Amino acid sequence: MNNNRILAVGSVALDSVKTPFGKAREVLGGSATYFSASARFFAPVSVVAVVGQDFPKKYLNLIKGLGVDVRGIETDKGKTFRWEGLYEYDLNNPRTLKTELNVFQSFKPKLSSENKKCPFVFLANIDPDLQRFVLRQMKRVRLSACDTMNYWIENKRPSLKRLLGSVKIFLCNDSEARELSGEYNLVRAAKGILRQGPELVVIKKGEHGVICFSKDFLFLAPAYLLEKVFDPTGAGDSFAGGFVGYLTRSPHLSEPAVRRAVIYGSVLASYNVESFSVNRLAKLKLSGIETRYGQFKNLTRF
Amino acid sequence: MNNNRILAVGSVALDSVKTPFGKAREVLGGSATYFSASARFFAPVSVVAVVGQDFPKKYLNLIKGLGVDVRGIETDKGKTFRWEGLYEYDLNNPRTLKTELNVFQSFKPKLSSENKKCPFVFLANIDPDLQRFVLRQMKRVRLSACDTMNYWIENKRPSLKRLLGSVKIFLCNDSEARELSGEYNLVRAAKGILRQGPELVVIKKGEHGVICFSKDFLFLAPAYLLEKVFDPTGAGDSFAGGFVGYLTRSPHLSEPAVRRAVIYGSVLASYNVESFSVNRLAKLKLSGIETRYGQFKNLTRF
Repeated sequence: MNNNRILAVGSVALDSVKTPFGKAREVLGGSATYFSASARFFAPVSVVAVVGQDFPKKYLNLIKGLGVDVRGIETDKGKTFRWEGLYEYDLNNPRTLKTELNVFQSFKPKLSSENKKCPFVFLANIDPDLQRFVLRQMKRVRLSACDTMNYWIENKRPSLKRLLGSVKIFLCNDSEARELSGEYNLVRAAKGILRQGPELVVIKKGEHGVICFSKDFLFLAPAYLLEKVFDPTGAGDSFAGGFVGYLTRSPHLSEPAVRRAVIYGSVLASYNVESFSVNRLAKLKLSGIETRYGQFKNLTRF
Repeated sequence: MNNNRILAVGSVALDSVKTPFGKAREVLGGSATYFSASARFFAPVSVVAVVGQDFPKKYLNLIKGLGVDVRGIETDKGKTFRWEGLYEYDLNNPRTLKTELNVFQSFKPKLSSENKKCPFVFLANIDPDLQRFVLRQMKRVRLSACDTMNYWIENKRPSLKRLLGSVKIFLCNDSEARELSGEYNLVRAAKGILRQGPELVVIKKGEHGVICFSKDFLFLAPAYLLEKVFDPTGAGDSFAGGFVGYLTRSPHLSEPAVRRAVIYGSVLASYNVESFSVNRLAKLKLSGIETRYGQFKNLTRF
């Protein structure tokens, strides 16, 4: 058992996406997919998810080929979770055309004895009751992080609040932070969320960068500027992959490590949006990550 | 004659503003006002503008009290330029309720022989034909900067293009950059504008910070995070004041100086939005500017 393995629980999906630059039909997507395709550069990753019988074998092989442990991906009777989205020129906000939960609807992740022992866990955006169900199964968690979405804030607020009391890192986007806290101003929103439990609140603002709040410090990072954002799908989860991945080196969340982790997350997200699906992340090398990390220094120093 | 004096040509106005936090009626505003209240920390400033006979003497004294040369502010027959705006929770985008140009309508700035010799000039958002008219009167300009707005992009594009061929620094917000260039992506937008002449294109994104483009480098700066943005009016012009003000020390636009200038601009803008009118800027001290500059380092280092 690796002492830095990350358990990623979330979706493995088939996405159909249209952007101003092209379209893709039923390509590999899902929060756990994007997360693990990014986090694998920093630590071994085990995915727990569910797919349907129609899930293409080539996609399972693709994830496996990235060095990710896919034994926790169950195949259930029925169809795979599908998402269909449209991005217009404002690439920060997709329009969801269709969501078919399919097998994901009855997803109730039971962890293998191996997975229960992972010291790191990323709970991607799923029902907060399930996120807590996973967390309770884990035996020696050193660092836990979770994401969520407006749907759970609106429909499962008490469960989400309980979850916030037991995770160390909470990641969300700016509108989610506002909705969860009832504060428009992001400083006040983050302070409100920090009071509910997490040590870190990471607010992802898409093309406008990331704000990372702790009780002791505040870090602002711009997004990497690209001449072409091809497809923003998965940007948040690939950010989380780089961020949590890097933090396996500093589970006590030292301030310098957290700052660097935000930049590594931003680097992974920036590569991810250069193509549909995980195509760019699958080809990425560590040297590419380090190069862009250096560019971030250059873009922001004064 | 100071060898670092800045000439600021633009509006001196009476603003009525409503924000989620309060309202102000007929307070001192205008682009030249905000610019000079900020730039004065770095270099002597002379303002050229026009007001009406109803312009309160106390406001003229207020500007003068900041050490700004107001001899170029003419008083014309008629009423002062008035703007009325409403900000809702999304403080980045004001809703203009009323614009009364009044004496500003026939503003045709003729420079005194002293003002013609200023080595630095900021041409705030006015008709690009007037901006060029001012620039042509100047005898030994070392550094020129201008701003504009969507109205001129839509109605005076050829004039604006000619202006871009003769200024060194162009400042605008993100939607103006997009409209002027016809490119949604800001990298491509900035490249398009750089090809029209300026050495620097500075895109102001409000609460999302600033992107500064030159042919040789790119600099990204976040905005200072405030727990309360009281009134965003004048943020862009106070940014310009800090930015151009600092650059009087480096008229050749050395890369390190430009980067620092962006941060000084952001510091001034962040103070400005803490109150209505120039109230906060009027009370500001150099030590406050240096403190927040240091905080910017701390907020962004990794």
